[in-house]
Amino acid sequence: MAGLIAQLRAALPHDGGVLTDPDVLRSYEHDEADLVPYGTPAVVVRPRTTGQVSAVLRAAGRHRVPVIPQGARSGLAGGANAIDGAIVLSLVGMNEIIDIDTENRIAVVQPGVVNAQLRRAVAEVGLYYPPDPGSWEQSTIGGNVSTDAGGMCCVKYGVTSDHVLGLEVVLASGEVLACGRRTAKGVAGYDLTSLFVGAEGTLGVITEITVRLRPAPEPSLTLVAVFDTFAAAGAAVSAVVGSGLQPSMLEVIDRVAMGAIEAYRPMDLPTAAAALLIASVDSGSRAPDDLAAIAAMCRSAQASDVFVAADEAEADALLAARRLAHVSLEALAARLFPGGGGIMVDDVAVPRTRLVELIEGIERISAEHGVVVATVGHAGDGNLHPVIVIDRSDPVSIAQGQRVFDAIMALGLALGGTSTGEHGVGLLKRDWLAREIGPTGLKAHRSIKAALDPDNILNPGKIF
Amino acid sequence: MAGLIAQLRAALPHDGGVLTDPDVLRSYEHDEADLVPYGTPAVVVRPRTTGQVSAVLRAAGRHRVPVIPQGARSGLAGGANAIDGAIVLSLVGMNEIIDIDTENRIAVVQPGVVNAQLRRAVAEVGLYYPPDPGSWEQSTIGGNVSTDAGGMCCVKYGVTSDHVLGLEVVLASGEVLACGRRTAKGVAGYDLTSLFVGAEGTLGVITEITVRLRPAPEPSLTLVAVFDTFAAAGAAVSAVVGSGLQPSMLEVIDRVAMGAIEAYRPMDLPTAAAALLIASVDSGSRAPDDLAAIAAMCRSAQASDVFVAADEAEADALLAARRLAHVSLEALAARLFPGGGGIMVDDVAVPRTRLVELIEGIERISAEHGVVVATVGHAGDGNLHPVIVIDRSDPVSIAQGQRVFDAIMALGLALGGTSTGEHGVGLLKRDWLAREIGPTGLKAHRSIKAALDPDNILNPGKIF
Repeated sequence: MAGLIAQLRAALPHDGGVLTDPDVLRSYEHDEADLVPYGTPAVVVRPRTTGQVSAVLRAAGRHRVPVIPQGARSGLAGGANAIDGAIVLSLVGMNEIIDIDTENRIAVVQPGVVNAQLRRAVAEVGLYYPPDPGSWEQSTIGGNVSTDAGGMCCVKYGVTSDHVLGLEVVLASGEVLACGRRTAKGVAGYDLTSLFVGAEGTLGVITEITVRLRPAPEPSLTLVAVFDTFAAAGAAVSAVVGSGLQPSMLEVIDRVAMGAIEAYRPMDLPTAAAALLIASVDSGSRAPDDLAAIAAMCRSAQASDVFVAADEAEADALLAARRLAHVSLEALAARLFPGGGGIMVDDVAVPRTRLVELIEGIERISAEHGVVVATVGHAGDGNLHPVIVIDRSDPVSIAQGQRVFDAIMALGLALGGTSTGEHGVGLLKRDWLAREIGPTGLKAHRSIKAALDPDNILNPGKIF
Repeated sequence: MAGLIAQLRAALPHDGGVLTDPDVLRSYEHDEADLVPYGTPAVVVRPRTTGQVSAVLRAAGRHRVPVIPQGARSGLAGGANAIDGAIVLSLVGMNEIIDIDTENRIAVVQPGVVNAQLRRAVAEVGLYYPPDPGSWEQSTIGGNVSTDAGGMCCVKYGVTSDHVLGLEVVLASGEVLACGRRTAKGVAGYDLTSLFVGAEGTLGVITEITVRLRPAPEPSLTLVAVFDTFAAAGAAVSAVVGSGLQPSMLEVIDRVAMGAIEAYRPMDLPTAAAALLIASVDSGSRAPDDLAAIAAMCRSAQASDVFVAADEAEADALLAARRLAHVSLEALAARLFPGGGGIMVDDVAVPRTRLVELIEGIERISAEHGVVVATVGHAGDGNLHPVIVIDRSDPVSIAQGQRVFDAIMALGLALGGTSTGEHGVGLLKRDWLAREIGPTGLKAHRSIKAALDPDNILNPGKIF
């Protein structure tokens, strides 16, 4: 290990390039996923160049030491969790926006660029980078690409993979692979770019990303509809997506989540209701008609109230409420279980027509197990985040939470869905991935992993 | 070989399942690419079920005989060309539309379904399958997926890969892999679906395809602009795509192609002009404004004339003209070289801002070599198809054509583009792929190929 660290120091001589202080090492142990194992790395490296990433992987390969790539560690599946004795390869220092090509509507960035940083930079020149995971103020584009992150805008604009045109990747061998393109179209060889997107750092370390941008959308119009049952909100969503309208946002918040948000930051949410549905449409001449059509569908689905946000400030406040769900539910867990409240965030996606069945099933599972489950999510994509509130100090509560978590995923798969819509597999859902893709799928995964990382150096044990 | 054929007959006992008649075998030798080598298969099999495809691959593996998957053989890169003694695996008999799910806007089809067949079936229920390669009346969805085919609508709606949600693939081992999903989002494991799309049958045989559909667009408005120089048409295209407008079609036809089309089917095209630009916008309340804005940009770019199609029939006639380019240029070649006229169809894509440089370069290369080059293409994507007219009976003409072909691709790469925008690599562009992706890219391709097809049974020699 001493020899390895000396090699790393030689390759990354800059201040903060190689960290071995035990307290510092512990701060790089895990991401935001709860109840997932992690270890303590032997060393953290923070390269500034692709060449340095290469040098790290070559050194790791020589010493057969695993490498755990990390961004902002805001992931929710343990995909960035360290293992004992590993090298943590933090990409946050490679945070330069290399190019914004306004004419071709392309940006080239380093992996450590924060999502919000890119959004703001392209907005300044009238462009738009749509993917907006809940963590957008912290999470990095490299992490977004490695997990194929989603967000609220995906219902109209698609997920991260829909915006990645090309990548520079350092392979386990230390070789630097350029894949993808800067053109609108291109079919030269295998689509390696898509293979690395969502691979959670198990196939290579992404060191440069070329993303597709869009013209900035005009400000949106937003409404909120209030429902007396959560299933009615789901029925409204099915009606909207089935109609062919293209909302730019279609989010749900259930009663438990609403109460938690209101307690965390009072904003007069209708906490007696069962669910809120927030819908936006990009403005333009058709927007008022589209919003009126969505309002009518909500009323047909028995909404008890529908109101249109008076202005952007009011719409932003609704969005802010939705974005506070995660932290509010953590606070709720801490209040419910002062000894060690915690949350398990699930991430199930089903065909959009099965949304009501998913919602009713989650409510049934919660009641059957007597476990508090708050649900928020990207309803327009059929993608919900049931959040299970547990007492981490109580093994019985943890076991109950785990049973609820599993029951919800089993339901999602039974409805023709997937066990992860946007958070990724990491360590949290390895068993579920195996169930979802079956033995032939797993074998294909293993053979591709072995082809690109024969010594299993890169983020071993993640995904499968 | 006799043992192999007996095994194939046992697995595919239906009429026409196994073909060995020498005349029939010759009709399965090659696709539409000119001047690309091909051989004569030992046998053609036409399975009807996934199980039969599996049986074919198992038998091929036991006997170590290569398998060449084929659709309609309308490809333009030799990707479906047979080699001597191989098994041709024709998927045209698996031509069932399995499901059209109108609520989730998804279709599930077998690979032999013809593109136009799917388009018509989903149009009947008010839906739209956008990818529209020039061969859409003949080519199969399986072939479209295997080459990641494009078309005219891609400028707004994207290419085939943007519409594939999931696949069933028979691996070289005969095992059946299901990948992808039916949900709007999903990140469970590696994106194997994208890996098989565009892999030209070298990694597996696609036996079922789940595609994303869209609501049917309203009828479009179309204009045609006439230019005195081809570069001026390119400048108009750059202005339109740079403006953020989203035309649903933006196609160019140069003077040579226009003359060939007019000779093939007289329709009063302005054959004295240097280039035509055809632009469409999907209708809706903004469409007339958008079309007027495009017209203004064409005039600013020195269009000598701009006229709006009076109705859909006139717009369809313009589109029909564009779609006749390929067959018209074959006819032109036959007139110019009665001894053996032929065409080489190129397929270069550049960043959209480099389009004028590409156009001027193609004109310069044509003049320098004294070779007739007609250019049509999806200008809005920066994707042009320079068509080189040669005398196949004259080795000097073939060599000249090859030099022009290569010079155009070298220019495309020098402009930051790709050697194939939508036709694929096949045999035609193997050398160019190697140049484009470099040794590390090639090595990654080879390792993935070896992982999924260790005995190199599937379409060997294609792509790389």
